[in-house]
Amino acid sequence: MSHPFALAGLSDLQTFEFQKVINEDPASHALTLLGTLKTAQAIIRIEKTALNASDGQRFFGDDGLVQQVQREESTDIYSWFFAWLAEDRERDLKVSVICPATETHVRKYTRQEQVLIRETPTLYEHVVKSYIAEFPLSRTQWVENILNGLSEQSKILYSNPQFLILPDMKWDLKTVSSLYLVTLVQDRSIKSLRDLRGHHIDLLKAIRDQAERIVLERWNLAKGTLRMYIHYQPSYYHFHVHIVNVNYLPGGLGMTVGQAHLLDDVISLLELDSNVFQRMTLSYSLGDQSDLLRRIRESEL
Amino acid sequence: MSHPFALAGLSDLQTFEFQKVINEDPASHALTLLGTLKTAQAIIRIEKTALNASDGQRFFGDDGLVQQVQREESTDIYSWFFAWLAEDRERDLKVSVICPATETHVRKYTRQEQVLIRETPTLYEHVVKSYIAEFPLSRTQWVENILNGLSEQSKILYSNPQFLILPDMKWDLKTVSSLYLVTLVQDRSIKSLRDLRGHHIDLLKAIRDQAERIVLERWNLAKGTLRMYIHYQPSYYHFHVHIVNVNYLPGGLGMTVGQAHLLDDVISLLELDSNVFQRMTLSYSLGDQSDLLRRIRESEL
Repeated sequence: MSHPFALAGLSDLQTFEFQKVINEDPASHALTLLGTLKTAQAIIRIEKTALNASDGQRFFGDDGLVQQVQREESTDIYSWFFAWLAEDRERDLKVSVICPATETHVRKYTRQEQVLIRETPTLYEHVVKSYIAEFPLSRTQWVENILNGLSEQSKILYSNPQFLILPDMKWDLKTVSSLYLVTLVQDRSIKSLRDLRGHHIDLLKAIRDQAERIVLERWNLAKGTLRMYIHYQPSYYHFHVHIVNVNYLPGGLGMTVGQAHLLDDVISLLELDSNVFQRMTLSYSLGDQSDLLRRIRESEL
Repeated sequence: MSHPFALAGLSDLQTFEFQKVINEDPASHALTLLGTLKTAQAIIRIEKTALNASDGQRFFGDDGLVQQVQREESTDIYSWFFAWLAEDRERDLKVSVICPATETHVRKYTRQEQVLIRETPTLYEHVVKSYIAEFPLSRTQWVENILNGLSEQSKILYSNPQFLILPDMKWDLKTVSSLYLVTLVQDRSIKSLRDLRGHHIDLLKAIRDQAERIVLERWNLAKGTLRMYIHYQPSYYHFHVHIVNVNYLPGGLGMTVGQAHLLDDVISLLELDSNVFQRMTLSYSLGDQSDLLRRIRESEL
């Protein structure tokens, strides 16, 4: 038997009396509305439908789905457009183009299957440590340039002889709900989480305290509004801490267990055992094309 | 000076020769295409535009944005529709309705600001422990019904006297790339991560081993394809472990540091210190309407 408030179709939905938006999630393109339907309180969640992979070849071309575009920006090999699937509509799509794209770009943007690795202290000593030592210096030159005062100095929010804090390149510098800062430390001997010991606790607490102070003073974000974490494996081997608004959940691997470690947990563990990161098995996922994964598999450890 | 491959507009994009889809992310409604543009290799990422919160009141009504709907399903107070923003187009939106909605529904679907809490052992002893003890038994009755053989017995994938493994209600039971299982343990004395001690290591390893065996036998997923984790705070206080395809990244708080703890890390920490979860400060975020947050704030600890 159908429920007395069962909805048949558009005519029922058209009686919706909108009250307010109670949730908004730009990452999943969704809105949740509160209002009334047929005298009863109702919640309506609206989200965009997924793009169909089988339409991949139909978007462009003379007879393609995309009927109109407007260029937003273009710099070097990157261009961004908004696109319309018919001419007289709200914009439907955002289109980002990289052209010409190198093989490195193709690898970076191609989906890789993730594989979970359990890195014992032995595996670290015999395989991962040398991988980190051989990591090309050129890939952290941009970090050196910031730490040595050669670039991005106007962006720096805080610095002392141990570390500096600046906006992460992923942040738009405006939207406080997606605030994203990064801390770079001066001590080049800390390559990753594995190198942290009890004598680093003061450094880690100072990072935490200064980050909290800065976001309070600059953006009026109270204590408890930041999620701070460390990647293992990180994308570059110069110790850094991610500092993000605790309400910001962009999806992807960045904040996920098996990739990220909460700074607060790291401090607490070091206080209990100053060699914990030397002794523990650290587990993380790697893309199946990763060079580190290849080395780990070849080691048979 | 503009780049030699700079793209002016639709006519340039229409020359795109599609080769293949190299990434597909239904959660963010995005596709990444590989092909050629003007003789060069090109990557094009297409994603849906966000819904505008200020359109919240314009979707329905006689003159609303939604021009056509089709009901997909309806059960009790829940209905799902697909919707079109004009009549002669691909479907644009998915619309989910809860009607009548109680205040509990409204609270559940209303966005809450997250606050990061640092739970010291003292705070746990004086505030959190009693909150957990007072958690209504009725809210874990569904777990008792499964453990006692009263419900969902046909779904159980594995059971022994210590625990059972079954599909999580969030999984569609078909799509292996979003595989989601849950382990429920029989031992009612483990309310949460805080109660885990060294003598639970064998139980946790057995869960890990059986989960790996089951997904290999049933779905041909090799070792290293699962992300297993424990929530703290969990949504119910009966010890359980989440078991998810390592490639599945749905977004939201579920797998995020400050909410989730990797089972492998938990085992490794217990091996180093069998009382680590009694001794460490555990940090997590709570919604600003949460009863636990209110108690923590009132305690002034």
